Amino acid sequence: MFKLFSVDDHIVEPADVWSSRVPAAMRDRAPHVVEADGREMWVWEGGRELTMGLNAVAGTPIETWGVEPVRFSDMIPGCYDPTARAQDFLSNGIFASVAFPTLPGFAGRKFMTFGDKDLALACVQAWNDFLIDEWCAAAPEMFVPMVIAPVWDVDLAVTETLRCLAKGAKALCWLEDPANIGLPGYHGPYWEPLFALCEEAGLPICMHIGGALPTVSLEGTVPMVEIAAAFAHAARSSVNMMVSPIPRKYPGLKLVWSEGGIGWITAALERADRQWLRHQHWTKVPQAEVLPSEVARRNMWFCMIEEPIGLSYRHDFEVGHILFESDYPHADKPFPNTQAACATLFDGVPQAEVDLITHGNAETLFNFALSPRLIAEHTAALTP
Amino acid sequence: MFKLFSVDDHIVEPADVWSSRVPAAMRDRAPHVVEADGREMWVWEGGRELTMGLNAVAGTPIETWGVEPVRFSDMIPGCYDPTARAQDFLSNGIFASVAFPTLPGFAGRKFMTFGDKDLALACVQAWNDFLIDEWCAAAPEMFVPMVIAPVWDVDLAVTETLRCLAKGAKALCWLEDPANIGLPGYHGPYWEPLFALCEEAGLPICMHIGGALPTVSLEGTVPMVEIAAAFAHAARSSVNMMVSPIPRKYPGLKLVWSEGGIGWITAALERADRQWLRHQHWTKVPQAEVLPSEVARRNMWFCMIEEPIGLSYRHDFEVGHILFESDYPHADKPFPNTQAACATLFDGVPQAEVDLITHGNAETLFNFALSPRLIAEHTAALTP
Repeated sequence: MFKLFSVDDHIVEPADVWSSRVPAAMRDRAPHVVEADGREMWVWEGGRELTMGLNAVAGTPIETWGVEPVRFSDMIPGCYDPTARAQDFLSNGIFASVAFPTLPGFAGRKFMTFGDKDLALACVQAWNDFLIDEWCAAAPEMFVPMVIAPVWDVDLAVTETLRCLAKGAKALCWLEDPANIGLPGYHGPYWEPLFALCEEAGLPICMHIGGALPTVSLEGTVPMVEIAAAFAHAARSSVNMMVSPIPRKYPGLKLVWSEGGIGWITAALERADRQWLRHQHWTKVPQAEVLPSEVARRNMWFCMIEEPIGLSYRHDFEVGHILFESDYPHADKPFPNTQAACATLFDGVPQAEVDLITHGNAETLFNFALSPRLIAEHTAALTP
Repeated sequence: MFKLFSVDDHIVEPADVWSSRVPAAMRDRAPHVVEADGREMWVWEGGRELTMGLNAVAGTPIETWGVEPVRFSDMIPGCYDPTARAQDFLSNGIFASVAFPTLPGFAGRKFMTFGDKDLALACVQAWNDFLIDEWCAAAPEMFVPMVIAPVWDVDLAVTETLRCLAKGAKALCWLEDPANIGLPGYHGPYWEPLFALCEEAGLPICMHIGGALPTVSLEGTVPMVEIAAAFAHAARSSVNMMVSPIPRKYPGLKLVWSEGGIGWITAALERADRQWLRHQHWTKVPQAEVLPSEVARRNMWFCMIEEPIGLSYRHDFEVGHILFESDYPHADKPFPNTQAACATLFDGVPQAEVDLITHGNAETLFNFALSPRLIAEHTAALTP
């Protein structure tokens, strides 16, 4: 049996996440679900969005996947119900999970677009309260509390992260490159207070591909290109961080690139080190003596769903910096056949390395141990 | 001795490329070099540009590289003089070379910005005439005639390519993704006449990283990021082509990604095939039975300067689809120590594979054989 710690899953928010939590005066303007044209739809001040089928394909055949809107009743309950999610996970040998938001966008960037920033902040806080008090509370031995923060203001982000740390937050979901969406980037000092806090608190920062895609690149795009080439965004944004002052100034940072894959990293480091050595003089890089590959091997973790060729290159990078993702309930997930998928994926990999990649690395990184009780209770059913 | 065929070098245009070739009435508006503020500068209708030091660093120490403008007299003659270039190449065991333009931008996209499109076309033609009649004519056994075409109009591009084919063109320098710069992309029919011609003529299409970088991404960027993460552009644009209708409709196309590196390809193919199989139904891909990896192994070639780790993954891709680049006189070049660099790079690689990667693959691809006479004349001096 593979004891799995998935560092990348997705929550389809229940309809009452915001309406039951924001102040009464904001309730009509916060995201809530309405029935229109025979569909269920999220609406909020200044926006509306159909729920998207591709975000909730767990348990459905590939041929039926699509972007067409669905109703909550079209999804399996594990999409939005934490107790059902926990049962689905246990049935697949997944004993811990880090989950990303859906409606707020990865890192919650959607709230940045709200004209009323008090409403925006209340919505960030409501999602975090839902995540900690409701989602993770349903299975506290399994669900790692990863929170979001206001991406439009570093002081607010620090304050909200501190509030969540006091409530037990164990990770921060953040933007892989804020400069992509018109915010200050990682080559200036703007975000330093947030990184300083995360370093001090030992809080891993998880950055999902697409969290800060440039809006311009989303218009007129071809879905298969966006899906198949998405690793290029993780490549560019992780290299951006590797050569920036941030990880040199805060060498204890834990930076996780989610759903970007692992097979390209060794090539990225080979290229980055070469260019660092050749161009460091005229580009006036920060701390030239710290190579980009050193930053990656110290501060960065990369994640994989099923990537056997990429996995075969693991010794050219670091076995201790590779993490497993289940991606439930999204389209890349191996669920409900996670154990079988892992048997294929890890065929021939030594057990000690399997243990690190499937859960040991994540246990250390998130300071969150798998539950021996849950493992003991489910071992029999999961062992072929 | 390594017998090298470099598929990626760069010409610093001599000052009279355009002024000596465009019609007299256009001469003042075509690019020409003027002396101003103690510098040499290119000027043309609507634009001006300082020559850039980083484009001509051959023979200078790393510590002095920069983007500061230089004079022609600051460069070694091999930057702009084809006879000197040929001598430099022979001294390093480089017996054939495919060279890209500098002032016109890769693929000549700068001319698209000219208000007067007659002038723009005349400038494209002047560069091609210079390339074939002057540059390649100086060492016809060594210099592969690669031409540019008007990127703003497919009919003009076809006409100019036909004109150059009649003059002996052996490759076309083109845009890796025209959609990045506001032109029609590769998922519609617009460019098909050009691809049909290239397939029929067996003309390889070389696409250099940065040829069609989105302009938006160039503002406010950090030079080290652009340099170190440039492979991400090759990754995205090659995957874009792999999943497009073009190589499925024209299965004889020869597509070369220049200076994008090779180490990330296996990861790109692993991801692209997985997503192709999982998402082909709802995304309605063209010819679903042809996998992206099949397109890459059939229609695409990838290029490397010095990338030993990437090279170690060659059997996970195709030894027959990897090419060597010298990048003279740019900053990535190993010149003047090309032979020594290759000795390190190819250490432990079987001779038959070395022969393919250093020249055999390129000889077949460009239908351009290394000169036995030149090799015989220079073997003694190059053999340690």
